[in-house]
Amino acid sequence: MDSGRVKELPLRDNIAAQRIAEEVIGDFEARMAIVIPTKDEKLELFEGVISGIPHECLIIVVSNSQTRRTDRFKMEKEALKQFCHFTRREALIIHQKDPILARALADAGYTDILVEDELIRDGKAEGMVAGIFIAMIAKRDFVGFIDADNYFPGAVWEYARCYASGFSMAESPYSMVRVLWRYKPKISAGMFFNRWGRVSEITNRCMNSLISNKTGSETEIIKTGNAGEHAMSLRLAETLTYASGYAVESQELISIFEGFGDIVSIVDPTIAKRGIEIFQTETRNPHLHEERGGQHLLVEMLLPSLGSIYHSSLCGNETKRLIIDELLQQNAIRSKEEPPKPRLIAPPQTINMKKFTSVIAEHMKSYSALEGEE
Amino acid sequence: MDSGRVKELPLRDNIAAQRIAEEVIGDFEARMAIVIPTKDEKLELFEGVISGIPHECLIIVVSNSQTRRTDRFKMEKEALKQFCHFTRREALIIHQKDPILARALADAGYTDILVEDELIRDGKAEGMVAGIFIAMIAKRDFVGFIDADNYFPGAVWEYARCYASGFSMAESPYSMVRVLWRYKPKISAGMFFNRWGRVSEITNRCMNSLISNKTGSETEIIKTGNAGEHAMSLRLAETLTYASGYAVESQELISIFEGFGDIVSIVDPTIAKRGIEIFQTETRNPHLHEERGGQHLLVEMLLPSLGSIYHSSLCGNETKRLIIDELLQQNAIRSKEEPPKPRLIAPPQTINMKKFTSVIAEHMKSYSALEGEE
Repeated sequence: MDSGRVKELPLRDNIAAQRIAEEVIGDFEARMAIVIPTKDEKLELFEGVISGIPHECLIIVVSNSQTRRTDRFKMEKEALKQFCHFTRREALIIHQKDPILARALADAGYTDILVEDELIRDGKAEGMVAGIFIAMIAKRDFVGFIDADNYFPGAVWEYARCYASGFSMAESPYSMVRVLWRYKPKISAGMFFNRWGRVSEITNRCMNSLISNKTGSETEIIKTGNAGEHAMSLRLAETLTYASGYAVESQELISIFEGFGDIVSIVDPTIAKRGIEIFQTETRNPHLHEERGGQHLLVEMLLPSLGSIYHSSLCGNETKRLIIDELLQQNAIRSKEEPPKPRLIAPPQTINMKKFTSVIAEHMKSYSALEGEE
Repeated sequence: MDSGRVKELPLRDNIAAQRIAEEVIGDFEARMAIVIPTKDEKLELFEGVISGIPHECLIIVVSNSQTRRTDRFKMEKEALKQFCHFTRREALIIHQKDPILARALADAGYTDILVEDELIRDGKAEGMVAGIFIAMIAKRDFVGFIDADNYFPGAVWEYARCYASGFSMAESPYSMVRVLWRYKPKISAGMFFNRWGRVSEITNRCMNSLISNKTGSETEIIKTGNAGEHAMSLRLAETLTYASGYAVESQELISIFEGFGDIVSIVDPTIAKRGIEIFQTETRNPHLHEERGGQHLLVEMLLPSLGSIYHSSLCGNETKRLIIDELLQQNAIRSKEEPPKPRLIAPPQTINMKKFTSVIAEHMKSYSALEGEE
């Protein structure tokens, strides 16, 4: 949970364990934005999640909540404002359908997340990419994602700490931290802590198969194929190709393997030379979140997730067969069907940043949670 | 959860909210011992709780776990040793039936928690008092208690932070922090977060009745009558009269009201002059713990808890009637019965500290989790 403050003792006095002082974590938190994509989440959960973000981090809420019947977005804004007022901190909140943000993206030539060049598409992945752009404008060095449906502020807090401690250990400017939940208890089934969510288990197996087949050695190295809780240095985040919907988290890894794995053509030799570091961190806290749907949701999440692996140029026949088998077993496809191709989203760095900034800069104040207060 | 690091900004720049810098919390944590009373708790929960104690705090485990059939105490010692080894920190672990500790207490004339002057009695309260003595020997300024049956290391971590932040705000050297859970979800009943445990609710009502009747104004000020998670400055802890069993937490408040409330005779005018500060802190994390028993346990906890209020010299007839009514309603007593008198435990300061230290000092090393390692 923490490893105390700087001491006279050498920090790296141990081979197996590394002590990261409180001050170092604070330094990295201060350079980090936490993006919370949300959509009609219970206000109490939303407010709890906000409260768990370490004080030094910049909070960026990208909300796709309804504004018509009841204006839930307004309620989120108000909750965030209250929190920021009393804790004396800064946060940004923007609606996914914000017309100015969409126009700024369109003007700057970045249309992959837009619908007919007018508004940003629905979907968590699109909200995440929007969050990356806001973090770029806010000039942070790291961006982390945390879902808004978490029951434990203390778990949220730990995720952000995992991110910060991972980045503090990174030697490359291109780094990623993915969180592995210690357990993923299902609320509906009483207090049974099952070690792995089903979706994660299958995704990890297929991704490990892909790696095993390319490297020729059996591996179980991927444990966070579906990690919703993850963070990246912005320098890495800018270069990755994303995917819509539930494919987004696995596509990130696929993009890294494809772009910098030295198997298919390398996207950027400078980056490949510096290397990309991926940290998979196991939390102490269990992950307790809203449980939605059963088999239905499993399939809905599994299909795109495995689709991103299946359609990778790295995916060999053996892994393809494994994916088909898994999907058939879950009744997610019929025989002879394939998982859908992911809808890809171009790397954020393809935007005309100057143009984007010139449109959005003057509106940034209106996204501030404390707008009008100071 | 945290309020960041020291900034140029004045910390008390706000009237309603107070910012407590990370460094200040660290200073108080370093002066604090956390006592974990445990008895045959699941090893995984025990280990999780240990991991949630902030790095700067001294961990003191007082275990009453079985040593015969399977030596659970040995397993706890091993788990603690592993943890301390890898996190490079110090902890103490002692068995409640440790014969040396019992002898040291007996030799020093403190026999209230002993059975026939031979061993320490069973019971959490007795373990807590033993923990206070160990914290005194370890020369800490504050002692906090955290139960070992908590599912969330992050909640444990927050309790210790609540303690530290409370003490940092205290102006009197005689202070207490009591934790109010934000919710107390019952595991067995799915994910229903009921705002108050039944026992706490009734205890608080009766204690508030006692205060209301003495002061003449209706109050709901007591919200933590049964707070298992609480901490005290050792200077306060030394002066209080405790009670056996489930009466211990409510008796602490009763002892303060009786001893320093300026109604019955004041125990120590110096302390009364400095004042005693009690902080009731609400957590952000819900409290998720092992649920044991239903109505049976409710009665088992409620009876002693209300007994400590009922038999206080401060308790007027109106409050006594309320207590009887509550107990009848819960079928905890039969008509014309009274709740049992609490078995009181003399203040730790009544011990002959010099004698106690002389016996126990040379054995302190054997209680170290890293015994033999350094």
